[in-house]
Amino acid sequence: MATLQDITVSAFINILIAFAFLLAFALLRIQPINDRVYFSKWYITGSRTSPRRSGNFVGKFVNLNLRTYLTFLNWMPQAMRISEAEIIDHAGLDSAAFLRIYVLGLKIFVPITVIALLVLLPVNLSNGMLSFLKRDLVTSDIDKLSISNVRPKSLRFFVHIGLEYLFTIWTCFMLYKEYDYIASMRLKFLASQSRRAEQFTVVVQNVPRPPGKSISDAVDQFFRTNHPDHYLCHQAVYNANKFAKLSKKRDRLQNWLDYYQLKFERNPNKRPTTKKGFWGLWGERVDSIEHYKQQIKDLEKTMALERQTIIKDPKSVLPVAFVSFDSRWGAAVCAQTQQSRNPTKWLTCWAPEPRDVYWKNLSIPFISLTIRRLVISLLVFALVFFYMIPIAFVQSLANLDGLVRVAPFLRPVIETEFVKSFLQGYLPGLALKIFLLVLPAILMFMSKMEGYISLSMLERRTAAKYYFFMLVNVFLGSIVTGTAFEQLHAFLHQAPTQIPRTIGVSIPMKATFFITYIMVDGWAGIASEILRLKPLIIFHLKNMFLVKTQRDRELAMNPPRVDFPETIPSLQLYFLLGLVYAVVTPILLPFIVVFFAFAYLVYRHQVINVYNQRYESGAAFWPHVHSRIIASLLISQLLLFGLLSTKKAANSTPFLIALPILTLSFHKYCKHRFEPAFWKFPLEEAMAKDIADHTAEPDLNLRAYLADAYLHPIFRSFEVDEEEELVEVRVNKHQTHVPGPTSTSGNVCYYDPEHPQHYTYQREAEP
Amino acid sequence: MATLQDITVSAFINILIAFAFLLAFALLRIQPINDRVYFSKWYITGSRTSPRRSGNFVGKFVNLNLRTYLTFLNWMPQAMRISEAEIIDHAGLDSAAFLRIYVLGLKIFVPITVIALLVLLPVNLSNGMLSFLKRDLVTSDIDKLSISNVRPKSLRFFVHIGLEYLFTIWTCFMLYKEYDYIASMRLKFLASQSRRAEQFTVVVQNVPRPPGKSISDAVDQFFRTNHPDHYLCHQAVYNANKFAKLSKKRDRLQNWLDYYQLKFERNPNKRPTTKKGFWGLWGERVDSIEHYKQQIKDLEKTMALERQTIIKDPKSVLPVAFVSFDSRWGAAVCAQTQQSRNPTKWLTCWAPEPRDVYWKNLSIPFISLTIRRLVISLLVFALVFFYMIPIAFVQSLANLDGLVRVAPFLRPVIETEFVKSFLQGYLPGLALKIFLLVLPAILMFMSKMEGYISLSMLERRTAAKYYFFMLVNVFLGSIVTGTAFEQLHAFLHQAPTQIPRTIGVSIPMKATFFITYIMVDGWAGIASEILRLKPLIIFHLKNMFLVKTQRDRELAMNPPRVDFPETIPSLQLYFLLGLVYAVVTPILLPFIVVFFAFAYLVYRHQVINVYNQRYESGAAFWPHVHSRIIASLLISQLLLFGLLSTKKAANSTPFLIALPILTLSFHKYCKHRFEPAFWKFPLEEAMAKDIADHTAEPDLNLRAYLADAYLHPIFRSFEVDEEEELVEVRVNKHQTHVPGPTSTSGNVCYYDPEHPQHYTYQREAEP
Repeated sequence: MATLQDITVSAFINILIAFAFLLAFALLRIQPINDRVYFSKWYITGSRTSPRRSGNFVGKFVNLNLRTYLTFLNWMPQAMRISEAEIIDHAGLDSAAFLRIYVLGLKIFVPITVIALLVLLPVNLSNGMLSFLKRDLVTSDIDKLSISNVRPKSLRFFVHIGLEYLFTIWTCFMLYKEYDYIASMRLKFLASQSRRAEQFTVVVQNVPRPPGKSISDAVDQFFRTNHPDHYLCHQAVYNANKFAKLSKKRDRLQNWLDYYQLKFERNPNKRPTTKKGFWGLWGERVDSIEHYKQQIKDLEKTMALERQTIIKDPKSVLPVAFVSFDSRWGAAVCAQTQQSRNPTKWLTCWAPEPRDVYWKNLSIPFISLTIRRLVISLLVFALVFFYMIPIAFVQSLANLDGLVRVAPFLRPVIETEFVKSFLQGYLPGLALKIFLLVLPAILMFMSKMEGYISLSMLERRTAAKYYFFMLVNVFLGSIVTGTAFEQLHAFLHQAPTQIPRTIGVSIPMKATFFITYIMVDGWAGIASEILRLKPLIIFHLKNMFLVKTQRDRELAMNPPRVDFPETIPSLQLYFLLGLVYAVVTPILLPFIVVFFAFAYLVYRHQVINVYNQRYESGAAFWPHVHSRIIASLLISQLLLFGLLSTKKAANSTPFLIALPILTLSFHKYCKHRFEPAFWKFPLEEAMAKDIADHTAEPDLNLRAYLADAYLHPIFRSFEVDEEEELVEVRVNKHQTHVPGPTSTSGNVCYYDPEHPQHYTYQREAEP
Repeated sequence: MATLQDITVSAFINILIAFAFLLAFALLRIQPINDRVYFSKWYITGSRTSPRRSGNFVGKFVNLNLRTYLTFLNWMPQAMRISEAEIIDHAGLDSAAFLRIYVLGLKIFVPITVIALLVLLPVNLSNGMLSFLKRDLVTSDIDKLSISNVRPKSLRFFVHIGLEYLFTIWTCFMLYKEYDYIASMRLKFLASQSRRAEQFTVVVQNVPRPPGKSISDAVDQFFRTNHPDHYLCHQAVYNANKFAKLSKKRDRLQNWLDYYQLKFERNPNKRPTTKKGFWGLWGERVDSIEHYKQQIKDLEKTMALERQTIIKDPKSVLPVAFVSFDSRWGAAVCAQTQQSRNPTKWLTCWAPEPRDVYWKNLSIPFISLTIRRLVISLLVFALVFFYMIPIAFVQSLANLDGLVRVAPFLRPVIETEFVKSFLQGYLPGLALKIFLLVLPAILMFMSKMEGYISLSMLERRTAAKYYFFMLVNVFLGSIVTGTAFEQLHAFLHQAPTQIPRTIGVSIPMKATFFITYIMVDGWAGIASEILRLKPLIIFHLKNMFLVKTQRDRELAMNPPRVDFPETIPSLQLYFLLGLVYAVVTPILLPFIVVFFAFAYLVYRHQVINVYNQRYESGAAFWPHVHSRIIASLLISQLLLFGLLSTKKAANSTPFLIALPILTLSFHKYCKHRFEPAFWKFPLEEAMAKDIADHTAEPDLNLRAYLADAYLHPIFRSFEVDEEEELVEVRVNKHQTHVPGPTSTSGNVCYYDPEHPQHYTYQREAEP
C-alpha cells in the first residue's frame, strides 16, 4: 500500500512532467517549422498556408520574434474564446459534443467534490478506527480519510448512504439535462445543415439476386413499385477491390513523375534518369520522365480494361445499393419501414454520409452477420478475460518485497526512498497504459469483422469493446488481485451477493493506486496529448526522408483526428472512478476534477487547431456515453452495497436497494425519451425541411445533385479528361433498363430514351 | 416419494375421471336443452337456431332419438374432418395457430419419446446403482428408469449428452419450420383478408394539448402537414365513462320493458304492475309498462344532455385519435415511423381491430406508463415469490408422516392403502390447480394497469406473467422444497454455478410428482374442458331464474372463448416438463404425448363448436410461444448441466457448454428472421394489396367506409331513430374546423363547407 508520501512524490513527478510537456509545447508551437503539426486543422480548412514561404531562411524554421516567447501560455485563453456555435461550425457537432463530455464531468463532479469533502472528511476522520488496527492491517494515511475509518455498525453510514442518494440524483439530473441538450442540438444541427446527399439516401442491403435480370434493375423495379411517389434513382455498388489496388499504384507512379518533373524544372540541364529494375537499384538506365509516363500509360490501359470488366460483369455489382428519394420525407419513410415480407431481405437504413461509408462491409449477407457477431462476441469475451495475465505480472512488480526476493541484487537500488516511491506510485499505472496501446487496433479489427457499414458505427462498437475491457481489466483487475480469468472463475463459484462484497471491501484500499493512475494517465497523458510528440517526430522524419513533392508534404501530416474509440472509454473510466470513490474515498475527487478541467482546455485547443474529423455523425455516440455513465452509477451503488454489508451496517444497508431500481428506470425513460433522436429522423422535421427547401429552390435538379454522391471513392481518382468514362460507370445501372409501366401518380419519369448514356450527368447541358 | 403403485392408482383415477367426463359430455351434448352450451359457436355464426322450437314438449328438452346415443364418441372424427383452411375461415387465425401449438408438441415429442425410450431405458436400467443404495435413499421404482440409476463418473453420460444435443437440434428444427409456417400463414391471412378498417388506421397517442385550439384540429393539421398525400380522416376518442354507465342502465330498463310487454302480450287481460321503490319491493304500485317507458324517456333525456356535454366540452376529447389513411401503404408508413421531434409525443402504432381496442387505456401519458410498468413489474415479482407460501403448506400434507404427527386421529384413515395413494399421488397436483384458478384475474388486472391498449396485448402480457408464475412456483417450486422466497434467498447466497446443481439433483426425484400432475391437470383437466361443466350449470341457472326475454337468452350463454392467458402458459409448462425430463426420466414422455394428442382433439372440437374469439390478432402470440419453448430448452440444458456435475461426470459435462450458446444464437436469428412479420406490415405487401384493391374497386368511397369504424362502442348502442344524433358525435371533430391552406399536392380536400354537420355520414346521399 502506498502512503501519502508516495502520492506526493507521484504527484510531484506528474506535475513536473505535465509542465515540461506544456513548456515544450509552448516553445515548439511557435516555430514555423512545426506549424503544420500544431495548426493542421487550419491547413485543411485552407485558411492558413505555410508560413515558411515568407521571411528569411532561418526565419522559415525558427521563430525569431522574441515577444511571442513571453506569452507562451496564451493558447489557453485563446482556446476558451471561441463559442460553442463557432466550434460546431468549425469542427462539427461530433467534436462539440465530445468537448461537452468534459463539461459534463465538471458539472457532475465539482459540486460532488465540494459536498463530499465538506461532509465526509469530518465524518470519516473523527471515527478513528484504523488507528486501533494499524498493527494488523497495513493501511496508508489516505485510508484515514476514507470510509474504512468508520467503525462497523456505526450509524454514520447513514451519511454515506444519504450522500450516495444525493450524488445519484444529481448525476441523473445532469445527465438528463445534457441528453436533452445534446438531442436538441443534434436535431438543430441536422435541420440547419444545408442539403446533403445522405438526407435523401437510404442504403439497402441484402438485395436478393433476381433470376434473369441485373441487380440494378431489380432495385429499380422494387422501389419504383413500392415507393412510386418518392423514388428518384439509385447508385449500384461495385466490387472494386482490384481496381482500388491499381488506382493506388497509379497514384504512386504519378507522384514519382511529379518528383522527376520538378527536379528537371529546377535543373533543366540534366534530365533525370532511373534504373528500370527492382526499386531502381539495378537494370537498364532510362530517362525517368519518359519511363514513368510510359508506365502510367500502360497502367491506365490495364485500369481501363479492369473498369470495363467491372462494368460489364454483372457479378461485380454487389447486392447493395444506395437508393435516393426526391424528398427527405421519402427517405425517412423508407429508412424506418420494413420493405419485404422476408425481413432479412431488402434491409434499409439511413445511408451514412459518403465519407463515413466503410465500403468493404456493404455486401455481407444477413446469416453471415449473425454468425460473425456471435463469434466476435465470444472472442471479445476471451480477449477481455485472458489479456490480463501479462498485466498482472507487471503489477506484481509493484509488490517490492516480491521483487527483492526474485532479484536480491536490486535491493540497494530499490531501498532508495525515491526509487521505491517511483516503483510503487508510478510503475503500475505506466505498465497498464503501455499494454493498452496495442489494444484498439485489435478491437477495431474485430468490429470490422462484425460487418458494420459505417466508420462511425465501427468506432462506436470499438469503443464499447474497449470500455468493457477497461472495466474488467483496469478497474476490476486493479481492485481484485489475480488475473481476470481467475476472478471469473472465483465469481462463478461465489454467491451473487458475495461478489459486490469481495470487490467492495478492497475498494478503499485501492484508492491510492487510482490516484496515481489519474495523475499518470490523466494529467501527464493529457499534457503529452497537446505536445503531440509522436506526430511531430513522424512529420519531421517524413519531411526529411520521404517528402518529394508539394503533394507529399500535404500528405505527410495526414489529417489527425480525435481517436473516439480510445479517448471516450478512457474518459468514461474517470466517471466510473469518480462515482465509485465519491462516498468511499472522497479525497480522490479533486484529482478527477483537475483532470476534467485540464483535459477540457487541452482538447478544446486541439479541436480548434489540430483535429479534423473524418466524418460527421451528429453526436451519434452520445447514447453510449449516457448509458455508460448510468452503468458507472449502478456499479458504484452495487459496490457500496457490498462494502457496507461487510461493515455489518445491517440497519442502513437495505436503504440502498431502491437506488439501482430507480437508476435503471431513469435510464429506461431516457432511452425512450431521447434515443430515437439518434437513429430515426422524425417525419415532422423531414417535412418541414422539405417544404423550406422547396420554397427556397423550387426548380432544383435533385437528381443531378445526387447522381454521383455515393460513387465508390476510387472512381473519383479519375482525372478530368476521363470524365467521359466516369459517366459510363455512373449510368451503367441503366444500360439494361427496360422502361416500366408509366407511373400513375405522375411523378417525372427519369428515363430519357434519346440519351440513355448521359442523362444523369448532364447537369448544365439539359434542363 | 411415490412408488410405481401410487402412479398406477393415480393413472387409474384420472383415466376414470376423464372417461366419466367424456361419457357425460357425450350424453349431455345431444340433449336439445344443452344445445346452446355445446354448439354456441354455431349460434353466434347464425347457422344454428334453437332446436327447442320443433318437436313435442319433452323432445324440446331431452333427446328421445335413441340412435344418436349409440354413436356418442363420433365427435372425435367429426372434429378431425375439418381442414385447417376451413378452421381459419370458421374461427380465425388465432384459433388455428393455437391448435398448431398442440401439433407442434406432438411433432417435437413423438420422435423424442421413441428415441428416448429405446435408447435411454436400456442405458439407465442396466447400470443398477440405486439397488445398492436403496437403504440410504428413498427412491421409487421409476428412478430405476431414470438417470439417477447411472453410476457417477460413468461414460454412459455421453449417451445422455448426445441425446440432449439431438433433442435440441430436433426441437430447434421443428420450431424453425413452425415459425416459418406461422409467419407465412399470418402474412397470407392478412393479405387474403377483405378490406378492414384497421388496415388503414393508425392509433396516435400522446397528442400534445395544443394551446388555443381543439385536439381534433391539432391532429387534423399535423397529419395533413406531415402525410399530405395519404391522410384521410380521423376519429377522436371521447371520455365517455359516465355515458357508458347511463347506457348500461338504459339497457337494463329496456330489458324490463320488453319483459313486461311480453307478459302483457301473453296475458292481455291483466296489465302487469310494479312497485316504484327499491328493487320493486315497496312503494306505490304502478303500471309496469308505463313506468318503464317513462323511466327510459327520462334516462334518455339525461343521456342526451350528457352527450351534449361530451360533444361540447373540449376536455372530453382525449389526447388520442384513430387516424385513417387512403391506403394501406400510408398507414404502414405512419405506423412504423417516428412523427415528432419529441419521441414521447405523437406516438403512432397500428390500430388494433375495433373490437380489440381496450378503450380505458387509450389516454395514459407516456411518463405515467413508465412508472406504471416499473411498479407492476415489482408487484409481479412480489406476487410470484410470496404466493407460494400457502401452496407449500398444502403440499406439506403430502408428507404423510408429518400429517399423522399433526393429526394422529387420522391415522386409521390415512393408513388405508388407497387413501394413502390418493393423498400422495393426487392431492399435491389438485391443490396446486385450485390455487392457480384465482390467479389469472389478478394478473389481468395488473396488465390493465400497465396501460396496453388492445385486449390481445393485454392477454399476451397476462400470459407472460402467468408463465413466469408457473415457472417459478409450479416447476421450480415443486422441485425445490420451501417457499419461493426461501429459494430466492438461498439462490442469492449461492454461487451461480451451484444453482443448477441444487435444482438438477432433485429433478429425477420429482418425476413421479410431475407424472401425476400431467394426469390431473392434463388428462382429467382436458376432459373437464370438453364437458364445460361450469358454463353448463351457469347457463341453466340463468335460464331458470334470470332469463326473461329472448334477448336475455342470447346473452345468457355469453360467448365463450379460448382463455389464451391461462391456456397457453399451462400448455407451455408441458413443453418445459417434456424437454427437461427427456433425457432425465424418459418414462415421463409418453404421458406428455398422450396429453398433447388428447388436448389437440378436444380443443379442435371446442374451437369448431364452442369457442368464439373476441378479437383476431393474426397469431400475434406466436413469438411468445416460440421464445418460451426456447427458454424451456435453455432451462433443460442448464439443469442437465447441474445434474451431471453432481454426478462427477467431469469428462463429459463440458461438452454441454456449447449448447446454450448455440440455442441462444438460433433464437436471435429466428427473432430477426420472423418476428418483424408480427408487428410490422411490409410495404411490399401493403402496396400489392393497395394496387389489387384499386383495380377491383376503383371508385370506392373509403372515407365513408372508415367513418365510424373506430367509434366508441357505447355510441353504437343508439337505436335507429337516434341516427341523427349519432352523426353529430361522429362529425363533431370538424365542428370547429377552420379550412387550412389548400393542399398543394392536390389530394381531395374532404371538408364540405355547405354540409359541415353531415358529410362524413352521407354514404349514399352525396358522391
